[in-house]
Amino acid sequence: MAALSPPYLLFLGDSDNPLSIKIARGLAHWRPELCIGETGGELSLGLKKMTPAQGARAGAKTFIVGLANGGGYFEPSWVGPIIAAIEAGMDIASGMHQKLSDHKEIRQAAQKHNVSLHDIRHTAAAPPLGTGVPRSGKRLLTVGTDCSVGKMYTALAIEKAMKQERLDVDFRATGQTGIFIAGGGIPVDAVIADFIAGAVEQLSPPADPGHWDVIEGQGSLFNPAFAGVSLGLLHGAQADILVMCHEAGRTQVKDMPGFPVPTLKDCIDTNLHLARLTNPAVKLGAIALNCRVLGAERADKHCAALSEQFAVPCFDPLLHGAGALAESLAGKEE
Amino acid sequence: MAALSPPYLLFLGDSDNPLSIKIARGLAHWRPELCIGETGGELSLGLKKMTPAQGARAGAKTFIVGLANGGGYFEPSWVGPIIAAIEAGMDIASGMHQKLSDHKEIRQAAQKHNVSLHDIRHTAAAPPLGTGVPRSGKRLLTVGTDCSVGKMYTALAIEKAMKQERLDVDFRATGQTGIFIAGGGIPVDAVIADFIAGAVEQLSPPADPGHWDVIEGQGSLFNPAFAGVSLGLLHGAQADILVMCHEAGRTQVKDMPGFPVPTLKDCIDTNLHLARLTNPAVKLGAIALNCRVLGAERADKHCAALSEQFAVPCFDPLLHGAGALAESLAGKEE
Repeated sequence: MAALSPPYLLFLGDSDNPLSIKIARGLAHWRPELCIGETGGELSLGLKKMTPAQGARAGAKTFIVGLANGGGYFEPSWVGPIIAAIEAGMDIASGMHQKLSDHKEIRQAAQKHNVSLHDIRHTAAAPPLGTGVPRSGKRLLTVGTDCSVGKMYTALAIEKAMKQERLDVDFRATGQTGIFIAGGGIPVDAVIADFIAGAVEQLSPPADPGHWDVIEGQGSLFNPAFAGVSLGLLHGAQADILVMCHEAGRTQVKDMPGFPVPTLKDCIDTNLHLARLTNPAVKLGAIALNCRVLGAERADKHCAALSEQFAVPCFDPLLHGAGALAESLAGKEE
Repeated sequence: MAALSPPYLLFLGDSDNPLSIKIARGLAHWRPELCIGETGGELSLGLKKMTPAQGARAGAKTFIVGLANGGGYFEPSWVGPIIAAIEAGMDIASGMHQKLSDHKEIRQAAQKHNVSLHDIRHTAAAPPLGTGVPRSGKRLLTVGTDCSVGKMYTALAIEKAMKQERLDVDFRATGQTGIFIAGGGIPVDAVIADFIAGAVEQLSPPADPGHWDVIEGQGSLFNPAFAGVSLGLLHGAQADILVMCHEAGRTQVKDMPGFPVPTLKDCIDTNLHLARLTNPAVKLGAIALNCRVLGAERADKHCAALSEQFAVPCFDPLLHGAGALAESLAGKEE
C-alpha cells in the first residue's frame, strides 16, 4: 500500500454505535496531529466538525472511511460524502472489504478528479516468500495470550515511550486500524497463507543497527482459528524482544468456547521456543497487562507481582505507559 | 471445488522435462484406474496414447492439464489440445495459476460446448473461520521435518494400506497434486491466512465414529517461510494420529540456507505439543522415513532403530508400504 497523505478528515458515518468508529477513534487517539477534523452524524471524537469542502479548504489531503459495519460494504448514505470529498480534491482511504475502485460512482469520480483510492484491506502486490535470512536493525513484536488483549495499543504505547527516550523507532502495522494509524502496513491476516512470514519480512526491512521496528502482533498461538497467522508473524518478525500482552481476569479465549486462555508461563515459553527458529537470541522484554477489570491499586499489585515472577517490566500501557520498558531498551543502547 | 468426473485423459504438454509432468505422474501412479490414456509430445507415463477426440470416444470425461511450468500460465502450444478436448465434450481441469476461465478462447469454447472448467489452485468459495469444535470420526495427519519429504506420498500409501485392511478411509488433499489425485480438496497454502484452520475443518468434516480421514500435510513447523500454514493445518486437522515424515540424510531445510532440519525428537515433540490445543489425545502413530539415499538393507536397519526409539512403526512408504501402521490401526478397531 502506498502511504496515505496527511492531514486527514475523519468520516464518522451516520451510525450511533460507538463501535462503528473504532478505527477513527484509534487514529484520533494515536495520531491527533494528523487529524484536522471530523465529518458525519451524531457521533463525535471531539475534533472540529467540517464538511468535506471545508476540510479540503482547511488543508485535509485524505478522507478516511475508517468505519466498521456488518458487511464491509459502502452504505448508500456514505457515497455522497465520499464523492463530495473526491470533488474537493481529497484522496480516499477505506478499510471496507468492498473496494473503493469496485464502486462505479466512486471510481468514476476519482478518475475525473485525479485523486487516489486506498483500500487498506487489500494489499497491492503479492508479498515475497519468507527467507528467514537475518536482517540488520532491531525488532520488537507484541504477542498475546488471546485476540483483543491490546497488542496494537501496547505496540503504539511502546513506540511513543521509545520516541520519548529519543530512540530511533517505527511502529509497523499488521492490522486495519494500525495501518490507518501508521499510514501504511500490511494486513497479515489477509495475505495468502504461503506468504505470511514473507509479508512480515517485507514490512520490517533491514535497517540501521540502532533502529527499532515495533511490530504489531495478531491473534495468539493458542487460538484454534488464527494461530497460523501468529506463527508466521513470529517467524517473519525475527524479533529480538517479545512483549507478552494479556488481559487480567480473562479465562476463556474470545469467541472460542472450550478453549481456556493459556497461563502466562506457557504462552511465554511457547512463543520464545518457536521464535528461536528465526532469532535464537529472542528474549521476553516485558509483560503488558490490560487491567481494565481491576482497579488502579490492584493493577499496580498485579503488575509488580508479574514483574518479579518473570524478571521483566510489567505495565498496563493505558495506566502506566511503556516508559519502564523504553528506559531499559534505551539503557541497553548506551 | 466440485469433484472431477473420471475417467481422465492426461495431457503431458510438449516439454521434454520429466519434472513438468509431476502431477500427471502422481495421478497415473496413485489412480491408474481413473486414467484412460495420455496425450502430448515426447514424454510418456506408459498409458495408451490418444488424441483428445480418441480419448472422448474411449470415454474420457475430464482432460487433465496437470503440468508445471515456470510462470503458471497456459503456453500457446497447449491451447490447441485444450480446445480440441473441449470440442470433444470433455471438462478441463488445470493446476495453473492462470485460470482457465481467464483465457478468452478457452472460456468461449467451454461456453459453446457446455463443459466445466476446474481451476485446482483457485478455491471456489471462501472457507469458514476455524472453530476448534471437536468433530466426530478419526483423523490422521502427515507432518514432516521439512518440505518435500513425502507427506503426500505417505498419506496415499497409508490410505491404500488402510483400504487393504478394510478400514473406512478417505485421503484428504491439501496440495495441487493431491487434489488431482483425490479429485477434490483445498489448496491450504493458497487460502487467505485467516482461514487456514477453517479450511482444514471444512476439508475433513464430521464423520462416522469409525471413519478415518488421512489428511495430507504441508510444509513444516521448522520452515521459516511456511510454518504458519503447517500450524493452521495442524490445528484444523484435530488429528488423533500424527505420522512424522522425514528424509534420511537430509540435514538442511530445502531452499533455506542456515536452517538445519530439526531432530526427529524435537520435531515430534513440537508437533504433538501444538496439536494438543485442538486434540489433547493426539499421538504419534508412525514415522515414515524416505530412504532414497540409503540402500534397502540400511533402510531396514534405520527403520528398525527408529521404531525401537520412538515405540511406533517406522517404514519407508515406497520400500515397505504402510501395512504396519494400517494393521495397528485396524487392531485398535477390533
